[in-house]
Amino acid sequence: MIIETLKSPSDLKKMSNRKLEQLAKEIRESLIRDVSKTGGHLSSNLGIVELTLAMYSVFDLPKDRVVWDVGHQAYVHKILTGRKDRFDSLRQKNGLSGFTRIYESQFDQFNSGHASNSISLAYGLAKARDLKHEDGEVIAVIGDGALTGGLAYEALNNAGKGESKIIVVINDNEMSIGHNVGHISQSLSRIRTRKTYMRTKLDVKKILLRMPLGGPWLFRHIERLKRRIKYFLLGGVLLEEMGFVYLGPVDGHDIKALRKVMREAKKLDESVAIHVRTQKGKGFAPAEKDPALYHGIGPFDPKTGEPLCHTPSTSWSEVFGKTMVRLAQKDKQIAAISAAMVDGTGLTDFARYYPERMFDVGIAEEHAVTFAAGLAKAGMKPVVAVYSTFLQRAYDSIVHDICMNQLPVILAVDRAGVVGEDGESHQGIYDLAYLGHIPNLTVMAPADQEELKAMLESALSWQCPCAIRYPRGCVSKRTRPMQMIEPGKAEVIEKGHKIAILALGDMVEPALEAAAMLKRKNMDVTLINARFVSPLDEDLIFSLKEDHDWILTVEDHIEDDGFGARVSALLSETPSIKVHRLAIPNGFLPQGTRAGLLKECGLDSEGIARVAEKLYKG
Amino acid sequence: MIIETLKSPSDLKKMSNRKLEQLAKEIRESLIRDVSKTGGHLSSNLGIVELTLAMYSVFDLPKDRVVWDVGHQAYVHKILTGRKDRFDSLRQKNGLSGFTRIYESQFDQFNSGHASNSISLAYGLAKARDLKHEDGEVIAVIGDGALTGGLAYEALNNAGKGESKIIVVINDNEMSIGHNVGHISQSLSRIRTRKTYMRTKLDVKKILLRMPLGGPWLFRHIERLKRRIKYFLLGGVLLEEMGFVYLGPVDGHDIKALRKVMREAKKLDESVAIHVRTQKGKGFAPAEKDPALYHGIGPFDPKTGEPLCHTPSTSWSEVFGKTMVRLAQKDKQIAAISAAMVDGTGLTDFARYYPERMFDVGIAEEHAVTFAAGLAKAGMKPVVAVYSTFLQRAYDSIVHDICMNQLPVILAVDRAGVVGEDGESHQGIYDLAYLGHIPNLTVMAPADQEELKAMLESALSWQCPCAIRYPRGCVSKRTRPMQMIEPGKAEVIEKGHKIAILALGDMVEPALEAAAMLKRKNMDVTLINARFVSPLDEDLIFSLKEDHDWILTVEDHIEDDGFGARVSALLSETPSIKVHRLAIPNGFLPQGTRAGLLKECGLDSEGIARVAEKLYKG
Repeated sequence: MIIETLKSPSDLKKMSNRKLEQLAKEIRESLIRDVSKTGGHLSSNLGIVELTLAMYSVFDLPKDRVVWDVGHQAYVHKILTGRKDRFDSLRQKNGLSGFTRIYESQFDQFNSGHASNSISLAYGLAKARDLKHEDGEVIAVIGDGALTGGLAYEALNNAGKGESKIIVVINDNEMSIGHNVGHISQSLSRIRTRKTYMRTKLDVKKILLRMPLGGPWLFRHIERLKRRIKYFLLGGVLLEEMGFVYLGPVDGHDIKALRKVMREAKKLDESVAIHVRTQKGKGFAPAEKDPALYHGIGPFDPKTGEPLCHTPSTSWSEVFGKTMVRLAQKDKQIAAISAAMVDGTGLTDFARYYPERMFDVGIAEEHAVTFAAGLAKAGMKPVVAVYSTFLQRAYDSIVHDICMNQLPVILAVDRAGVVGEDGESHQGIYDLAYLGHIPNLTVMAPADQEELKAMLESALSWQCPCAIRYPRGCVSKRTRPMQMIEPGKAEVIEKGHKIAILALGDMVEPALEAAAMLKRKNMDVTLINARFVSPLDEDLIFSLKEDHDWILTVEDHIEDDGFGARVSALLSETPSIKVHRLAIPNGFLPQGTRAGLLKECGLDSEGIARVAEKLYKG
Repeated sequence: MIIETLKSPSDLKKMSNRKLEQLAKEIRESLIRDVSKTGGHLSSNLGIVELTLAMYSVFDLPKDRVVWDVGHQAYVHKILTGRKDRFDSLRQKNGLSGFTRIYESQFDQFNSGHASNSISLAYGLAKARDLKHEDGEVIAVIGDGALTGGLAYEALNNAGKGESKIIVVINDNEMSIGHNVGHISQSLSRIRTRKTYMRTKLDVKKILLRMPLGGPWLFRHIERLKRRIKYFLLGGVLLEEMGFVYLGPVDGHDIKALRKVMREAKKLDESVAIHVRTQKGKGFAPAEKDPALYHGIGPFDPKTGEPLCHTPSTSWSEVFGKTMVRLAQKDKQIAAISAAMVDGTGLTDFARYYPERMFDVGIAEEHAVTFAAGLAKAGMKPVVAVYSTFLQRAYDSIVHDICMNQLPVILAVDRAGVVGEDGESHQGIYDLAYLGHIPNLTVMAPADQEELKAMLESALSWQCPCAIRYPRGCVSKRTRPMQMIEPGKAEVIEKGHKIAILALGDMVEPALEAAAMLKRKNMDVTLINARFVSPLDEDLIFSLKEDHDWILTVEDHIEDDGFGARVSALLSETPSIKVHRLAIPNGFLPQGTRAGLLKECGLDSEGIARVAEKLYKG
């Protein structure tokens, strides 16, 4: 096995193309075997095996620096840079990260996770190299999806000036229509002259629409294709105009061709963009067939590809998605917006039933939010479903376009709180801090699935900017009837004394268990489902000073600027009651299981009971 | 005077081109006269007179909706929509805003201020119109500068699908090289065919570089031009490929041509981009000559253009800029990054002395910050100078690219706190809230100019992520010697008892005066220059409970998640000392003078003394 003999990426330099092809096969087998046990991002890594091998056999790492956009496709990179033996710990507590991490290896340039930043980072590295009169190539590897993000465009716009050379490798894995793209791209490039092209375009449209049977379908189909190809139809011209030499497209599974284009790129003294076509899931039939399923997958049978455990329970995202479908049926003004996460946010059915009201804008969170503001201004009721960690990118759009204009946009903040295996780059533990202070924005968190439904329906009826945050994972089976939510009102679940536990969102359930544990020890504490972070239920919180010495706030968020911090600030002039915050310690929270990390932070029923008992006993 | 007879934009519809030309002249005179008294954005409004007139004479407002990007060029729009008589109140307390404001007129679609959002907003309006089966055109007016923002690109990318028609008017006022652009653009468009174009490009480069004398200069010059023209050389092709019909370029001061192109755009049933060339400052010789000076200007002599008052004092930005020049002389690794605000942030001299280390990335705050992360990773010491209100857009880049990677980037947060006349869209009163909780980020504020210098120098020496916030306006004359700043340490200015005033940044000066006022009344209070918001000087703050009943925090920031809120949270388990927060009330703060607004919020010496005295007397 060649794979066993690898010590450093430089070992690849002497290998023949045939040997690299053999190594590619071994890496694929190794990837499938390892990921089938741990779960992880499979499709994208299977797609990039030859590309990584060819790149690392031509460039000199670590002197030449490779910046991986997003980073979940860097498994092959990790195998080639001395981390093959640790793959059994992938995405586990203290194990190998599923993204590039600077503390794992000198070959990892940045802690990665969010899309579209690699070109800016690479250009910074290149500019510093030139200012310091050092040498070495800088290569950004970015997927076609990440090119929809505005940051990538800002970077291309600046990096293309040609003053500091970078190499941008575009990993184009729009697998489903790969060949068509190429064909149309080539034939269109021959008729590029402005007028001819325009005339042709219009003629084709007319002819197709006039065709009695398949015409309109064909036209729509071509329209869809056209959308997909716009980057690469234009890619070359645009990138060249921006100052890049455009090379490609190259077959991303042809090692010989890849090595050749990499060597060309290395020789040039201008910035280069290499367009590489890859197939997601390449070499593993089930993943080739359904690359989306194997994009991020749990453990599976490496022979059949069958996922090993089917979770019969319902996720928060599913509850959200189903509620959206139900509400949209009654109200035609409800629209859903996603930034390339229709499935992840539970909107698959919504997209099926109401395609005209489902807007997937690509990896473009800012546009998602500002576009929603426009929809709302003209009378629609837009709901933007985004993961907490990605909504960060739209902070200014939320402040300026939604809230300064007081427009009724609902932000459905999915994956809020601890997300687990994706680690520090994906934790949703800062959203209360970046949303809580925004004027005109109501921020809330449901305790259970019925409350999520009620909050969504209520928020839509209030017609003001709202954010609803809910976690990754499954809802509890606890159900209770619920109608609508009263704005700014918390729910008193149990009345006690000495201590009032104010639990937020999914922390209500472990707090309930904690209260029961305390009750068994004859400590009757008050338990409140806080519901609202902004505005706080000030009257209720102030009233607690009558019977209580302590408020114990419990939240799935960092301590700073979170729910407990807001309660503390509210009571800063009320010395008769003290506030203890149970939250995630400030900082970046590394990977682990969601339950494990919460437990470590004391955010499980035992942890809550332990602190509450201590405070109770003073 | 035609201008006096105008009642509504529909009055323009019946006017001849000649009459509109006469009206344009009157509007220019009126603009120069009014803005010479109040100050405001002059150049851009003088440049857009004919464009606005032509547009409003063709479209039917308010059924047709116009979204102004940034909005500071909407003065003509305001004159035409019934607000001419209020121009003497421009940018003043309770007066006319310098931007579009929904509470001023039904013709203002959005509260505007930040760049690059108009296409997303317009597309939202258009999509809602079509879903609701309504009609009316939607027009976004966006400058070429705002097209450098990634949000604009995300929007074009989505809006261009052609399913809902919008009209994008590109106001191209790259005045300095306007004609050259056109010429090159046209000649190049004839040789667009890929191969020919590439060959020509390479040949020209070779020939030019071989020329003995002017060749290299000419090549560089052409390179510069090429960068400038990339939008519009490509604009047409790119926009058409994205699904827009491209019309233009049109002379933005030719009413007949403008009306014609607007009518064409109206007739089409697809999305249209109209490329209009305008001249900033048009019709006022001093502004034509120096449009940058008249971009945003104070009162001036309408005859000569001479500014009426020269402020001899030094601004915070100037102190920052001069310090940067001084430090960069000693340390070659210091680099400066600006997002289209080199002059505004005081970096003009830095750019002159160290052009190779000055990076103006255009209106692209995210790229500015992420690019800086790249520079820092490779050993540079980048300082990103951005206004507080614009840094909002880079929140994710700060968290993910700088702080998660612990890279030593300095954020120089200019225009922090109350900015005054620009109003709610530009106040820098949220930065502590969106920066204070970010892990690994040190956040501080200097009390005076010497402290700003010391903080900048100290931060550069610490080699960790830092943000330094300082306000708009002039520094106080108070000076004191200062060397370096100790990380996380506040400065005790006066020791007293009962009350400790913790003042942040430029609030230290009025707090000093307040303490003196109290002293004259025999109340000896403690006065602390807080310096750090994150990390807080916890030891010092805890120690205050010995001699004090109250901490009074004073900050130029909203109450929520600001400095005082952090102090409150820190002391939430320490009931022996109470915290009173003197801050800006939560919400959006409308325009007024900076001093007036601060006074209203009680953030002047009298206000601070008043509250402190009340607390002192219990």
